[in-house]
Amino acid sequence: MKTITVLGSTGSIGTQTLDIVAHHPDRYALDGLAAGSNAALLIEQALRFRPKRVCLATEEAARAAREALPREIDVLQGEEGLVELAAGGKADTVVTALVGSRGLQATLAAIEAGRDIALANKETLVTAGHLVMEEARRKGVSILPVDSEHSAIFQCLNGERREDVKAITLTASGGSFRDRTRDQLRGVTVQEALHHPNWSMGAKITIDSATMVNKGLEVIEARWLFGLDYDDIGVLIHPESIIHSYVEFNDHSIVAQLGLPDMRVPIQYALSYPERLPSPTGRLSLAELGRLTFREMDFDRYRCLALAYECGRIGGTATTVFNAANEIAVERFLRGEIEFLAIESILQQVMEKHDPASDPDLGSIAEADRWARRLAAAL
Amino acid sequence: MKTITVLGSTGSIGTQTLDIVAHHPDRYALDGLAAGSNAALLIEQALRFRPKRVCLATEEAARAAREALPREIDVLQGEEGLVELAAGGKADTVVTALVGSRGLQATLAAIEAGRDIALANKETLVTAGHLVMEEARRKGVSILPVDSEHSAIFQCLNGERREDVKAITLTASGGSFRDRTRDQLRGVTVQEALHHPNWSMGAKITIDSATMVNKGLEVIEARWLFGLDYDDIGVLIHPESIIHSYVEFNDHSIVAQLGLPDMRVPIQYALSYPERLPSPTGRLSLAELGRLTFREMDFDRYRCLALAYECGRIGGTATTVFNAANEIAVERFLRGEIEFLAIESILQQVMEKHDPASDPDLGSIAEADRWARRLAAAL
Repeated sequence: MKTITVLGSTGSIGTQTLDIVAHHPDRYALDGLAAGSNAALLIEQALRFRPKRVCLATEEAARAAREALPREIDVLQGEEGLVELAAGGKADTVVTALVGSRGLQATLAAIEAGRDIALANKETLVTAGHLVMEEARRKGVSILPVDSEHSAIFQCLNGERREDVKAITLTASGGSFRDRTRDQLRGVTVQEALHHPNWSMGAKITIDSATMVNKGLEVIEARWLFGLDYDDIGVLIHPESIIHSYVEFNDHSIVAQLGLPDMRVPIQYALSYPERLPSPTGRLSLAELGRLTFREMDFDRYRCLALAYECGRIGGTATTVFNAANEIAVERFLRGEIEFLAIESILQQVMEKHDPASDPDLGSIAEADRWARRLAAAL
Repeated sequence: MKTITVLGSTGSIGTQTLDIVAHHPDRYALDGLAAGSNAALLIEQALRFRPKRVCLATEEAARAAREALPREIDVLQGEEGLVELAAGGKADTVVTALVGSRGLQATLAAIEAGRDIALANKETLVTAGHLVMEEARRKGVSILPVDSEHSAIFQCLNGERREDVKAITLTASGGSFRDRTRDQLRGVTVQEALHHPNWSMGAKITIDSATMVNKGLEVIEARWLFGLDYDDIGVLIHPESIIHSYVEFNDHSIVAQLGLPDMRVPIQYALSYPERLPSPTGRLSLAELGRLTFREMDFDRYRCLALAYECGRIGGTATTVFNAANEIAVERFLRGEIEFLAIESILQQVMEKHDPASDPDLGSIAEADRWARRLAAAL
């Protein structure tokens, strides 16, 4: 029996993680659940899965949970509670599915406590990859990717020698606006942006797919997860999202991972690795599909992706600032405050003004993060 | 330094194997070379690569080699010489690239002598899979597939647990006549049949691709190499020959191996496994390619494939007889003696008349083989 704590249990990845746990009650039990402000859903989850402890971000939500839940379930609160939930208890694996750069501290605390990490929060590595990977190495814990692209790469690397890897390619559906030119992006609505062609995901990541920021964050995440140079991380447009990503080896042999676009497969793999369990999803039939298509990534069309590579190559606080500015810009777009293309120009302006520090500690990271948010909110 | 003996060095796989050896003189040296009757090419190869021993099938060819080669190179002859070449000497790996069911005895002798086998001769497993795999297990030698499809499966299984495998799928280009209906197959010429759309291969295997017998032999080979039920071995038409084959796991995750269609990649992998060496071929660009297409295998159009599955399920001498009858039928077609579609009807008639023996020894296999050849020659 593997014991699991889920940070961000009420979000898209979180609820799908609980789906997997419910599918395999003989294999997985929940130790802790953490959510933001959605007390109603967290309470429902806690009553069903009976974790030892839960945590909510706000005092109000925590109070509601204390009232609704039986006494044997501890209710924690806030950032402090999150760290306690992640590090304490006895989870074998902590699923980090919080959105945005929240949860970095809790992830580091979980690693410090020797727990394996099923990493769904890509901002953790984007903002503090050097610290997180070093700590994981030091503690000998595994960082198991949950993102479909990174899970694909991880699967393709099974049994292979790292020195035989020539390059990896992350596939990108192209997002909700893939068939529009830059001109056609002017005046698009939030509703249009939230309509992803293949994947059912949260709002933030769906917008990030449309701007290709998501792929940029994934490129940076891949750099840390797999220890590759940016020159060896490619991005390819693949509208069907069937090939989830692939590895090219020195002998020019390519190993790819394919499947229906369903996040429960990579989530389950991160929990079951190195084993595989019966699938929560249907079988892929390439014959039924008929064809897979591909086209070169267009870095002029998707300038945010070019910017992400730039920030990645600069390193240090540059990626933190890129990510923080993007979080604010996306929030503003979702609130209807700014135009879709303004996300890109905000990112560009913030990066131009940023003076990156290399090898930053948590304090400098937090400072750069705050600075970027303030600026992105004001532009 | 790995020492290699190549059985069938003057054929398509053989010459490409020597290409790989020439590419990596610091890693590979030749111990022995065996060919059929092409003394001129074998002599050229021996003078270049300086093996300890060579073998030719005919007395005449052997005499020519003895005259042309320096004394320190031993020249052996015939089936006996082939067995001596395969088992004697000090090769780490024996590449079995003879065409047809010749070479079974030599392969078994090589396994008996503890040499790893880079298996390019699929008829070895088709006619005597139960004996060969059992002997390999007993001696602890590796059977490394050279066929692009089996190499693909082998690569996709790297680091995976066999019990997690749900099914494998071998891809098929469809061969030289893939765009013709059955009616349009009447009266096709040998020249037309020899024109394979993607792969540059020998004559026998190119005809076998057109009839889909080749895929049938591969299905049977896969059954032995990977220990799967026939129900779990699928075949998919993939005209571009870019996805070389794939494995589906229990979680419905598919891992596929892709690359340009160049036999030197799987040949090199069989020699370098578990390492990978710099490629002898170009890089695959999916963006340049633009798309990959797939369609369901049509067992009515390709009746030989349906027959191969049937023979595989019957087992015992059925697959030996299928293979032997096919060798004769293809020879007769290449000599212009019979029509293209007669290959299929000869196979069908021979199988109808055959009374299969289960778990046959080498004697029964040889007898069934002779019986099928005689009958296939007379029909």
